[in-house]
Amino acid sequence: MKLAIDAMGGDHAPKAIVEGALKAIQDLDNIEIVLIGDENKIKPLLTNTDRISIIHTTSMITNEDEPVRSVRRKKDASMVLMAKEVKEKRADACISAGNTGALMSTGLFHIGRVKGIERPALAPTLPTIDQKGFLLLDVGANVDAKPKHLVQYAIMGSVYVQKVRGINKPRVGLLNIGTEDGKGNELTKNAFTLLSDAPINFVGNIEARDLLEGKADVVVTDGFSGNIALKTIEGTALGLFSLLKKSLFSSLKAKMGALLVKNELKALKNQLDYAEYGGAGLFGLAAPVIKAHGSSDNRAIYSAIKQACYMVENQVIDTIQTTVDTLETEEEE
Amino acid sequence: MKLAIDAMGGDHAPKAIVEGALKAIQDLDNIEIVLIGDENKIKPLLTNTDRISIIHTTSMITNEDEPVRSVRRKKDASMVLMAKEVKEKRADACISAGNTGALMSTGLFHIGRVKGIERPALAPTLPTIDQKGFLLLDVGANVDAKPKHLVQYAIMGSVYVQKVRGINKPRVGLLNIGTEDGKGNELTKNAFTLLSDAPINFVGNIEARDLLEGKADVVVTDGFSGNIALKTIEGTALGLFSLLKKSLFSSLKAKMGALLVKNELKALKNQLDYAEYGGAGLFGLAAPVIKAHGSSDNRAIYSAIKQACYMVENQVIDTIQTTVDTLETEEEE
Repeated sequence: MKLAIDAMGGDHAPKAIVEGALKAIQDLDNIEIVLIGDENKIKPLLTNTDRISIIHTTSMITNEDEPVRSVRRKKDASMVLMAKEVKEKRADACISAGNTGALMSTGLFHIGRVKGIERPALAPTLPTIDQKGFLLLDVGANVDAKPKHLVQYAIMGSVYVQKVRGINKPRVGLLNIGTEDGKGNELTKNAFTLLSDAPINFVGNIEARDLLEGKADVVVTDGFSGNIALKTIEGTALGLFSLLKKSLFSSLKAKMGALLVKNELKALKNQLDYAEYGGAGLFGLAAPVIKAHGSSDNRAIYSAIKQACYMVENQVIDTIQTTVDTLETEEEE
Repeated sequence: MKLAIDAMGGDHAPKAIVEGALKAIQDLDNIEIVLIGDENKIKPLLTNTDRISIIHTTSMITNEDEPVRSVRRKKDASMVLMAKEVKEKRADACISAGNTGALMSTGLFHIGRVKGIERPALAPTLPTIDQKGFLLLDVGANVDAKPKHLVQYAIMGSVYVQKVRGINKPRVGLLNIGTEDGKGNELTKNAFTLLSDAPINFVGNIEARDLLEGKADVVVTDGFSGNIALKTIEGTALGLFSLLKKSLFSSLKAKMGALLVKNELKALKNQLDYAEYGGAGLFGLAAPVIKAHGSSDNRAIYSAIKQACYMVENQVIDTIQTTVDTLETEEEE
C-alpha cells in the first residue's frame, strides 16, 4: 500500500515527519511512502530512499491560515497535493500534522465523503486508566451536530474500533451530564433515542468524570462538547504534572524522593502520552485521513502511519460504507 | 444574619453538616444557624446550642428523587423547609449538599428569581495553577442556554467575584473551542458579540485547555458544556492521582521515594481540593443559595457557610439586581 504524508505540517516538520516515515519503512515491509513538501529541507534528512519518494512543493498551509480559503487558494500546498494523491488513487491513505480545519476542508473538497455520512468527525483515541483507551468523536469537525450525526459517529467509531483494535461488539456511550436515561440537553435526549435503536452496542450515557475509567470503547458527542472534553483532559493533565514537578523540587527531602520515583513518574507520563495512541482519524471521508497532533514527534508520526496502515488493511472505509448502505436499505423497506 | 442549612443533604449528612455549622458558629460571631432535619439524628451531634436551632422534619429528598416532582410532593422535606425559611424572611441565605436539581427547583418555586434574570446558573469556583481560582458558570442549571443567558451569567459572575473575592474589574472569558474571535458553534459566536457589548471586562474566548491557567476570573458557558468541563477536570485529576498512587507503590525504591514526597503530594491534593473553595452558588435567585458538593466533609460545609455570609454581607444579590435594572433602563431609553 502507499501512504501520502504532508511533510510540512506540525511544529516539528519536516524533521519529525521524515524520521517517523523512515522508522515505518524499516518496520513495515508492505508500505511505500510519498512525502510532500520542500525537497531542499526533506532530502538532507532522508538517510534512506528505499520505498520513500518526494513530491516537491514549496507552498504550504500554516496554522494561521483560514482553512477553507487557504485550501482553495494554495492549490500547490503540501497538504492539498497530499489529498490529491489519494483522490487520484496514487495513494491509499494520507497523514498530516498541520492545520486541522484545512485538513478537514481539503479532505471534503478533494477526497469527498462516504455516501450516507453527512458530516465527517474528528476521532482521537484517548488514554484510560486501564490503559485500553477509548475513541472520542467528534472533537471539533462539526460543532453544531444533529442527533442523526451522532448515530453516524457511533457506527463509524464501532467499525473502526472493531477492525483496527480488534474489540468485538465495542461498547458505545453518549457523553452526557448524567448517567440516567432522559438526562441532558435537546441534542443528547434525542440522540439517546436514536442510538438505542441503532445497530450498535449502545451502553447509554457516560458522564465526563468517568471518561478515563474505560466504561466505553467509543464515546460520541457533538464537536463542541467533544473538543471541550478533550482539551480539558489535556489541560488538567499538563497542569497537574507541572504542579507535581514544582512541588517535588520544593525542598531537599522532596528532591531526594523525586529522584527515587523518577522512573515511575516517567512511565506514568508515557502512559498518558498521545504519541503512543496515533493520530485522530477524520472519519466519514472516502479514504483514511489521519490528523497527527500538531506537536507530534517522530514516534507520534510513526504511530499515525501504523494506524493508517491498519485502516487500509482492515478495509475500515469499505466496512463503514457497507454498514451505512445496509441501514439505508432497511429504512427504504 | 441567619443561615438556613439542610442538615440531611449530602453523603455525610447530618454529621458533616452539624460539625461544619458548629465550627462556623465558633469562628463567626455575627451569625445564627437553623439546621433543618431529623432532630433525633442532629441533637446527639450538637455539642453546643449557642446560636444554633433545629427545625425538625423526617422527610427528605434523596439523590434518586426526580427533582421537580419531589419538591412538589415532599412539602416537608428538609430542603423545601430550608427554602421556605428564606422565602418567609426568617433566614438570609441557605445551603444544601443534597440533590442539585431539587435545590434548583425549590429555589425557583420558593425563593424566586432576580427580576430580569431569565435562568439561574450553577457557579462553582475551581482551582487554578496560580491558586487564585476562577468562577465557572453555568455547570448544569440550564442545559440549552441562549446567548443572552450567557451575558446574564457574565454580569452575575462579575458582581460575585468583585464583591466576595475582592477582584476589581474581573476578567470574563467565554469557554470556546479556539481563542480567535469568530470561533465556535452558533451559541458561542452569538454570545461573543453580545458579551463584547456588555458592561463587563470581557477578555474573549478561553480554550478548555487553558481553564486551569487562570486566564480569566469568570468563565461563562452553557450548562451542558460547563458540566462537561467541570466533570472532566474532576475525573482527570482523580484518575491521575489514582495512577500516581499505584505507580508510587510499584517497587520498594518507589515506596521509599513516596515516603519522602508524601507531604508535597498531600499539599498538592489540598491545593486542588474543592472543600477549600466553598460550594457552588445558584446565581439568579432572589437570595444566596449555595449548593455544597455531595461528598462535602465538615470543612467543605464550613467554607460554604463562610461563602453564604460573604454573599449576604456584601449584598451580592442586591448588586446583581441593580446592575440588571440599569441595563434594562438603558435598553428602554
